[in-house]
Amino acid sequence: MEEFRNIGLIGRLNSNKVIDTIRRLSRYLIDEGYHTILDDRIAEVMPGHGMQVSNVNMLGEICDLVIVVGGDGSLLGAARALAKYNTPVLGINRGRLGFLTDISPDDEMTEAVQAVLDGDYIEERRFLLDAEIKRDGNPIGSATGLNDVVLHPGKSARMIAFDLYIEGQFVYHLRSDGLIVSTPTGSTAYALSGGGPIMHPRLDALVLVPMFPHTLSSRPIVVDGKSEVKIVIDASQGLYPTISCDGQTHIPCAPGDTISIRKKAHKLKLIHPKGHNFYEICRTKLGWSSNLGE
Amino acid sequence: MEEFRNIGLIGRLNSNKVIDTIRRLSRYLIDEGYHTILDDRIAEVMPGHGMQVSNVNMLGEICDLVIVVGGDGSLLGAARALAKYNTPVLGINRGRLGFLTDISPDDEMTEAVQAVLDGDYIEERRFLLDAEIKRDGNPIGSATGLNDVVLHPGKSARMIAFDLYIEGQFVYHLRSDGLIVSTPTGSTAYALSGGGPIMHPRLDALVLVPMFPHTLSSRPIVVDGKSEVKIVIDASQGLYPTISCDGQTHIPCAPGDTISIRKKAHKLKLIHPKGHNFYEICRTKLGWSSNLGE
Amino acid sequence: MEEFRNIGLIGRLNSNKVIDTIRRLSRYLIDEGYHTILDDRIAEVMPGHGMQVSNVNMLGEICDLVIVVGGDGSLLGAARALAKYNTPVLGINRGRLGFLTDISPDDEMTEAVQAVLDGDYIEERRFLLDAEIKRDGNPIGSATGLNDVVLHPGKSARMIAFDLYIEGQFVYHLRSDGLIVSTPTGSTAYALSGGGPIMHPRLDALVLVPMFPHTLSSRPIVVDGKSEVKIVIDASQGLYPTISCDGQTHIPCAPGDTISIRKKAHKLKLIHPKGHNFYEICRTKLGWSSNLGE
Amino acid sequence: MEEFRNIGLIGRLNSNKVIDTIRRLSRYLIDEGYHTILDDRIAEVMPGHGMQVSNVNMLGEICDLVIVVGGDGSLLGAARALAKYNTPVLGINRGRLGFLTDISPDDEMTEAVQAVLDGDYIEERRFLLDAEIKRDGNPIGSATGLNDVVLHPGKSARMIAFDLYIEGQFVYHLRSDGLIVSTPTGSTAYALSGGGPIMHPRLDALVLVPMFPHTLSSRPIVVDGKSEVKIVIDASQGLYPTISCDGQTHIPCAPGDTISIRKKAHKLKLIHPKGHNFYEICRTKLGWSSNLGE
Repeated sequence: MEEFRNIGLIGRLNSNKVIDTIRRLSRYLIDEGYHTILDDRIAEVMPGHGMQVSNVNMLGEICDLVIVVGGDGSLLGAARALAKYNTPVLGINRGRLGFLTDISPDDEMTEAVQAVLDGDYIEERRFLLDAEIKRDGNPIGSATGLNDVVLHPGKSARMIAFDLYIEGQFVYHLRSDGLIVSTPTGSTAYALSGGGPIMHPRLDALVLVPMFPHTLSSRPIVVDGKSEVKIVIDASQGLYPTISCDGQTHIPCAPGDTISIRKKAHKLKLIHPKGHNFYEICRTKLGWSSNLGE
Repeated sequence: MEEFRNIGLIGRLNSNKVIDTIRRLSRYLIDEGYHTILDDRIAEVMPGHGMQVSNVNMLGEICDLVIVVGGDGSLLGAARALAKYNTPVLGINRGRLGFLTDISPDDEMTEAVQAVLDGDYIEERRFLLDAEIKRDGNPIGSATGLNDVVLHPGKSARMIAFDLYIEGQFVYHLRSDGLIVSTPTGSTAYALSGGGPIMHPRLDALVLVPMFPHTLSSRPIVVDGKSEVKIVIDASQGLYPTISCDGQTHIPCAPGDTISIRKKAHKLKLIHPKGHNFYEICRTKLGWSSNLGE
Repeated sequence: MEEFRNIGLIGRLNSNKVIDTIRRLSRYLIDEGYHTILDDRIAEVMPGHGMQVSNVNMLGEICDLVIVVGGDGSLLGAARALAKYNTPVLGINRGRLGFLTDISPDDEMTEAVQAVLDGDYIEERRFLLDAEIKRDGNPIGSATGLNDVVLHPGKSARMIAFDLYIEGQFVYHLRSDGLIVSTPTGSTAYALSGGGPIMHPRLDALVLVPMFPHTLSSRPIVVDGKSEVKIVIDASQGLYPTISCDGQTHIPCAPGDTISIRKKAHKLKLIHPKGHNFYEICRTKLGWSSNLGE
Repeated sequence: MEEFRNIGLIGRLNSNKVIDTIRRLSRYLIDEGYHTILDDRIAEVMPGHGMQVSNVNMLGEICDLVIVVGGDGSLLGAARALAKYNTPVLGINRGRLGFLTDISPDDEMTEAVQAVLDGDYIEERRFLLDAEIKRDGNPIGSATGLNDVVLHPGKSARMIAFDLYIEGQFVYHLRSDGLIVSTPTGSTAYALSGGGPIMHPRLDALVLVPMFPHTLSSRPIVVDGKSEVKIVIDASQGLYPTISCDGQTHIPCAPGDTISIRKKAHKLKLIHPKGHNFYEICRTKLGWSSNLGE
């Protein structure tokens, strides 16, 4: 177990609730003698905060723990930046339970955070994906995703044709709206609304979900997490699709480009309060308790 | 690499084509100096075969290789019997490519088999599932599946209510037509027609596919292959559902019964001819080459 | 608008809540001067009710309105019996909103019923399906469904092979767990959990939903409500599947049997309180307000 | 039955095969004494054709029949232009069967066309959809689709939030990648790859298919073909999605815009050779004959 003394604070922008929560939380932490460092983007819109300010990379270097206040989307952004520093990340949601942000910003928030600081927590390692785009054999861009790497039409807004390879083996030539390559973490996000299966966070696997495939028998494919996935964009079609990571980072591609997707060397250290339970969150967020019948 | 001298022969019953193929194959093997042993069930309908005859368990004990002539269904039956003897199994299909039986019974059959006997083959380990049913805490039945373990209404023909646990954690209470618990091997069989994902044969995972669930947000769940899955049949509903393995072995259950499903200790040694490629079989059998568009 | 003087009362059996509701409702109706007639099955378990008692067919003949207290399942049973008498049917649920039973058994129940009796209601015509089974050309059974007619394995618990014809045109030969033929009314019930679309109750259409089809490209098919659907069970397979209507009436079938399904001549007159709104019920019962996102 | 004397010819651009087919067909028609008029776009790339040339609208006014050589996509374009002139349209595919273009360009092509000209044909009426976009109550654009009207992110490449109304009734607020509103004609195209049902061409219905909906219980909805569908783009989200018709006509939208979709007054007269059968085309194009099993 690690000792948390230097606590980074990151918050979703454009939300007064988030700023209130960070104020309340930082006051508590400072009172309790922790050293808090505020992310520079949220610091700008929080005058009079009185804390040390750093950019997210510096937070990764100097903090023992980074607390993200916002939705799962905010945590995704922090996770991509912090994974390589090995800094543990804890999420506080904005009032609605998330898969990644599972401390509620209510009256018991400070107690829940204190419990984590006292060592009462669950630490999970979540793997990320690196995507590298090559043009004529030369790297032209790369990006990282905790949830997913998605090939989609982007501004071209038209069906894409591509070849898919897994571990060097040709899988198929597909015409579709795109392809989602998702981690277990992402399997309850975009991949799920596209018909992919739910994968337990501890599973070492990727799921490939074809989006609106022309071939009706194309189904989600689950492969080992160590597999290299390669997409070759059809050179003859003249289309310029986009690769997006977590729906937040975007790289424009060109005909003939090759996208290689593989597990990132660094993993995210995701902190949960004790008692965290994946299936319980599924039941709540996916409405597994409600049903059709009488 | 193992040396194959004693070759067991198993065939699908009620098919003249299968008998013709076994005659041709056994003649070839005997001419080449191999010792062939015929499964007793097929021996009964193959008068004048002139070979040693054994039941399938004895085949497992004395053979270096068992060749199954038939469809994937025939190989499933042989696999369940032979896994515990560690006997490699090779499949010859009845004229139509299978996921498990991938040597064709055409003119080149004997050459393809000879190549395997010469050591030119791929050996895969496929895991099986053991299902154990307990009533009032006492075991009342057990069965093994290479493809899947399926809870279904059986003769009661009515929706089942049950609780699902994975690794001891409560997942949900579900009302549905049943639940498919499938291995990667089974993911291209019944589970696929129920909306489950395709899982690569080498993935160490299980997929749980709810059948016609009342809860619309119930989706296939993929978990680690080492997970224990537990189903507790609703005690109050008065229903007597059935557990089926590979659609071939059936155990009647009662209200309140508990079904524990976990990976079998023994794995199947499945032999493929060199050049075997999982995605190529998918393309052929699932029609991935055909599509909607122009 | 019709005048409702003679009111039939039908209730779900084995529920004390239902009996309480019927007692409260009948007291109110008698006090208000209506003539109430109690279904004979519920009368048996309601000693001291003091009302005229009839079987469901007689209720159809003598009542101006039949009120069903229970779930959608109870209303289905009453609807199949009453449709041919043209008797309007009103549903009171047992505490949980139904698609068909949309008056709540709470404090305002008598006011809601009184409003209907005063003429303040919406009347919908819902069509039913007649299924007729022929063996060697001779009728051997028939049944009616308000929700659906379902071909399923029944006690045989095995995949069925059959030919499907619509309006006399051959559609396909399918191997599957069965086929659901559903009305718009049934499209939010079993057909929905099988992947069928939601159909608005006023649409004149049928949906055919293949159950776990072997052919991955088999999809739900929507056809005109006046279409005749014909299923011919494969004669060579030796299977004895079952035809079920609304999951409540069952007819055993044999190899080679022909099932003809077409719209019933009589329609159900379904009464809703004013303000009834199909999409509002969908939002509530299907959980359309909850979602995955932040 | 109509007499066809003046025959318009339209062809897919950028295809030598199409030009060859048009040359062969026009030579035949002229030899047989028909008056042929060539679409001006294809005329440009067909030097020395020696025929009268018109734009597509003029074709609609002066022709008794327009023959489209190309894929279903080419016929969609012609259909949108010609529907209002009531001109029958016949499709010749480019070598691969289409749902709309069902004469093959092989040796028997001229015989098949002659049979149609001799009156041996099936005429279907296919309805189209009109989409009208309003901003602050004022119309800012409109378009027509034979297959579908699709709301999608366009260049914004982000999830859209919108309210859906059918016949003036609020259905739901949805966050998704978009919504497909499809005719029966379009139900075997984009809507099908999005999970929508197949609708028989003669059904008078629309299907609404949510694209990657955040709400897992959102399902395709089938409503009467006369229904007005209204989409109101969320005003607060700052997104500029696109409305596309048949994937060929695009209208940029803005926050708060209202899109009204309803059946077009004019229908397409689609000509098929005698013997045309919808289910037969499904079997061929959707691969209904192939299946998973042994």
